[in-house]
Amino acid sequence: MGLDLNSDLGEGFGAWSMGEDAAMLDIVTSANIACGFHAGDPSIMRRTCATAVEKGVRIGAHIGYRDLAGFGRRAMAVTPADLRDETLYQIGALDGFARAAGDRVRYVKPHGALYHAAAADAALADAVLAGLRDYDPALVLLGPAGTHLEKSALAAGTAFVSEGFADRAYTAAGGLAARGTPGAVLGADTAVAQAVSLAENGTARVLGGGTVAVSPDSICVHGDTPAAVRMARRIRAALEDAGIAVASFT
Amino acid sequence: MGLDLNSDLGEGFGAWSMGEDAAMLDIVTSANIACGFHAGDPSIMRRTCATAVEKGVRIGAHIGYRDLAGFGRRAMAVTPADLRDETLYQIGALDGFARAAGDRVRYVKPHGALYHAAAADAALADAVLAGLRDYDPALVLLGPAGTHLEKSALAAGTAFVSEGFADRAYTAAGGLAARGTPGAVLGADTAVAQAVSLAENGTARVLGGGTVAVSPDSICVHGDTPAAVRMARRIRAALEDAGIAVASFT
Amino acid sequence: MGLDLNSDLGEGFGAWSMGEDAAMLDIVTSANIACGFHAGDPSIMRRTCATAVEKGVRIGAHIGYRDLAGFGRRAMAVTPADLRDETLYQIGALDGFARAAGDRVRYVKPHGALYHAAAADAALADAVLAGLRDYDPALVLLGPAGTHLEKSALAAGTAFVSEGFADRAYTAAGGLAARGTPGAVLGADTAVAQAVSLAENGTARVLGGGTVAVSPDSICVHGDTPAAVRMARRIRAALEDAGIAVASFT
Amino acid sequence: MGLDLNSDLGEGFGAWSMGEDAAMLDIVTSANIACGFHAGDPSIMRRTCATAVEKGVRIGAHIGYRDLAGFGRRAMAVTPADLRDETLYQIGALDGFARAAGDRVRYVKPHGALYHAAAADAALADAVLAGLRDYDPALVLLGPAGTHLEKSALAAGTAFVSEGFADRAYTAAGGLAARGTPGAVLGADTAVAQAVSLAENGTARVLGGGTVAVSPDSICVHGDTPAAVRMARRIRAALEDAGIAVASFT
Repeated sequence: MGLDLNSDLGEGFGAWSMGEDAAMLDIVTSANIACGFHAGDPSIMRRTCATAVEKGVRIGAHIGYRDLAGFGRRAMAVTPADLRDETLYQIGALDGFARAAGDRVRYVKPHGALYHAAAADAALADAVLAGLRDYDPALVLLGPAGTHLEKSALAAGTAFVSEGFADRAYTAAGGLAARGTPGAVLGADTAVAQAVSLAENGTARVLGGGTVAVSPDSICVHGDTPAAVRMARRIRAALEDAGIAVASFT
Repeated sequence: MGLDLNSDLGEGFGAWSMGEDAAMLDIVTSANIACGFHAGDPSIMRRTCATAVEKGVRIGAHIGYRDLAGFGRRAMAVTPADLRDETLYQIGALDGFARAAGDRVRYVKPHGALYHAAAADAALADAVLAGLRDYDPALVLLGPAGTHLEKSALAAGTAFVSEGFADRAYTAAGGLAARGTPGAVLGADTAVAQAVSLAENGTARVLGGGTVAVSPDSICVHGDTPAAVRMARRIRAALEDAGIAVASFT
Repeated sequence: MGLDLNSDLGEGFGAWSMGEDAAMLDIVTSANIACGFHAGDPSIMRRTCATAVEKGVRIGAHIGYRDLAGFGRRAMAVTPADLRDETLYQIGALDGFARAAGDRVRYVKPHGALYHAAAADAALADAVLAGLRDYDPALVLLGPAGTHLEKSALAAGTAFVSEGFADRAYTAAGGLAARGTPGAVLGADTAVAQAVSLAENGTARVLGGGTVAVSPDSICVHGDTPAAVRMARRIRAALEDAGIAVASFT
Repeated sequence: MGLDLNSDLGEGFGAWSMGEDAAMLDIVTSANIACGFHAGDPSIMRRTCATAVEKGVRIGAHIGYRDLAGFGRRAMAVTPADLRDETLYQIGALDGFARAAGDRVRYVKPHGALYHAAAADAALADAVLAGLRDYDPALVLLGPAGTHLEKSALAAGTAFVSEGFADRAYTAAGGLAARGTPGAVLGADTAVAQAVSLAENGTARVLGGGTVAVSPDSICVHGDTPAAVRMARRIRAALEDAGIAVASFT
């Protein structure tokens, strides 16, 4: 069994850049590419898709709230009907570039505040699923396990890929420890070890001590700083050293 | 031989509406639907595509400059590379809704300032064609005859549908008389007569007197005011009374 | 004692218009003018300010969330720090046009989802007040009585003008009956009578029967449809017939 | 006589940053601060104004086209009437933050494509001047000498501050050599020398050989890369070593 590595890419906008996309596309197997609502623009989308295809990285639509000023990180009371439409719009826009590059959008991952809102709210999760299936019922949904996103995917008959985090401590219930809590964000060495443990043993560290069973299909790594890129590279190397195949789920 | 009637639709944005889309979709055979750059949003796009398909009207991507504040009517120095990408983005975004409604985008028509810029500039026309063909080489281009848009389409092997105007006087060279000139915009009765003349005789009125040979494949009608809708309805009725088949080109 | 009539104006954007501003500026004494975040653009702001000053109507900054696509009607998780800054930005932008027209911004009223959010949340209300006072501590705040907006204004030493509604039934506690409830929105005749009752008796109708003490300083009237304009005109006429001075609070 | 150093600052947007603002505010005497149309947002504007005032740097409104996606670098056919309104809007928005920080906007400088368009077109230059004077006739205009911006300022009775470039070769006519031409952009050492020559001798290097008389009131320096910051710091040091007072014009 293999493990996927995914990362948020193509998050610049116009004259502004963000993250080390070129470096990350040598590390990950799945690229969550921004579609212009929270970040990204047509030229960035083309370039990111082209490089992803060139390097054999799978393309996913990283759909977000229509909020460039807030980078999609602010909760917005978008109705389920509008969210379904915004989901469909973003997937379609990105798929043109994916196809021009010789592949196609393979999966959808909600971004930022939408990720959290749709995980917690059945109507929003259903809206994301409806937009995804409007476009192509064969698309996969990538998101947090045990949430409404997973439930809506299963109910709709959509393949679901669960995401885990190497650099975050978990709760005893298998959720993420809140980011503000001391110890919730792991250092680089611990994160590398946790990546291997997630893949080999299906366990993550619990904040306060002990472990909990967590078996993600994909680990999310970050490329927003040079240190983050280094950690992502170490995670991939450690997985491979442990004999775990790093490969896309699709 | 038939004649197509096209109109710009789906031009609202959020809480703002524009034009009498429902009425126009009973009159025209081709709907140029805004894709979110100069007008339109995901929910309007879905609704307009759904109604178009329901009424058997063909869907075209009405691509525009990224300028909601100016409704795409202001010339912008967008590079050909960016224009190609913006073209691809808009077609892809709309096609998702067209397919969800049971059809697909059939053609592309540039809007407003982009229409004029790409007609006059070979590099911009080529960029529109490149974006169109990136998405699907089978898409048709709708635009003004005898311009760079037509030349680029022919050079690329893309089917070109020429557009004429019932309510505008022409120059002796077969172009449109400048809108500001007295007599350049025809009254309703004259416009209805010219529609028939374009289809039956292949001639349009020349400002100052006489006629000129013009044989458009499609006539553009407007739905921004109730009077415009009435004129569009009369044009369709007059064409049918004259035995001319009103039908989409695709 | 007089009563103020306020209305939301200048809510078009670019090529899109909304509401019957010219008619409303003959009826109201205070104009809540959109500042470009949820609606409005520089040219609309200039025109609306100029007409308001010409007709002796006071100018207020109708500040909203940065959400043109949602018309400021969708709750957004904007931080208090950002909200303070967005408040200051919008007031400053509008004041340039108010001064160019020969007056100045006199008051601030939050719009749509921000109106409700700041009424219900002390930190957001404080942020609006901080932005208002950053610009000019002499500015007045217009909003719903008995809410955090009123409390924050009083705590900050800012004059507060309370707003009531002629066309809405109230709860026994003096709040508005929820819009969806049958009977919550009053017909034109009842609304006209309630406007006079608010001014003369300080009472409003309670949904289900009876009255409740409500003494607003300003009544909000709408201009989004011809029927709304007619009702606003009737309200003003009824107040004047009852001998109530219709006058701005400033 | 002193010489002013100006730089474009506050050019981030939301989650995206640009340039080394903190470093530049220790070097320059005038800060051209983006107002939200081509870059900048309310929180960045507050922070940049506050730091500028703290360091004794004068605040100017860096007005631009409404084109975040293009960073204001793309020519746009904005009408003079709209441009006047957009100028007034941006100055007013920034002035709120300047005043909250304890100073006020002192001058206006057009950005990017607007800088070039207004320099070359009398109607656009007049529109910028009209918007500037709508806000405050005492505001200063900063721009290129010998252009319509200077002519319109002089005709309107507005103080004009001319801008020169240390790192650019000039033409024999005193204009800038086109950026694409080999030799048009000077290396760091030459640029530092030219800064002193502009101030001491009133001469700049001509591309191809020789010098031309150029006596700017302000030199524009850049902070978009660490190398640019280093050059700006060297320019200031070289001016001071040569006994030239580096001071704002206002």
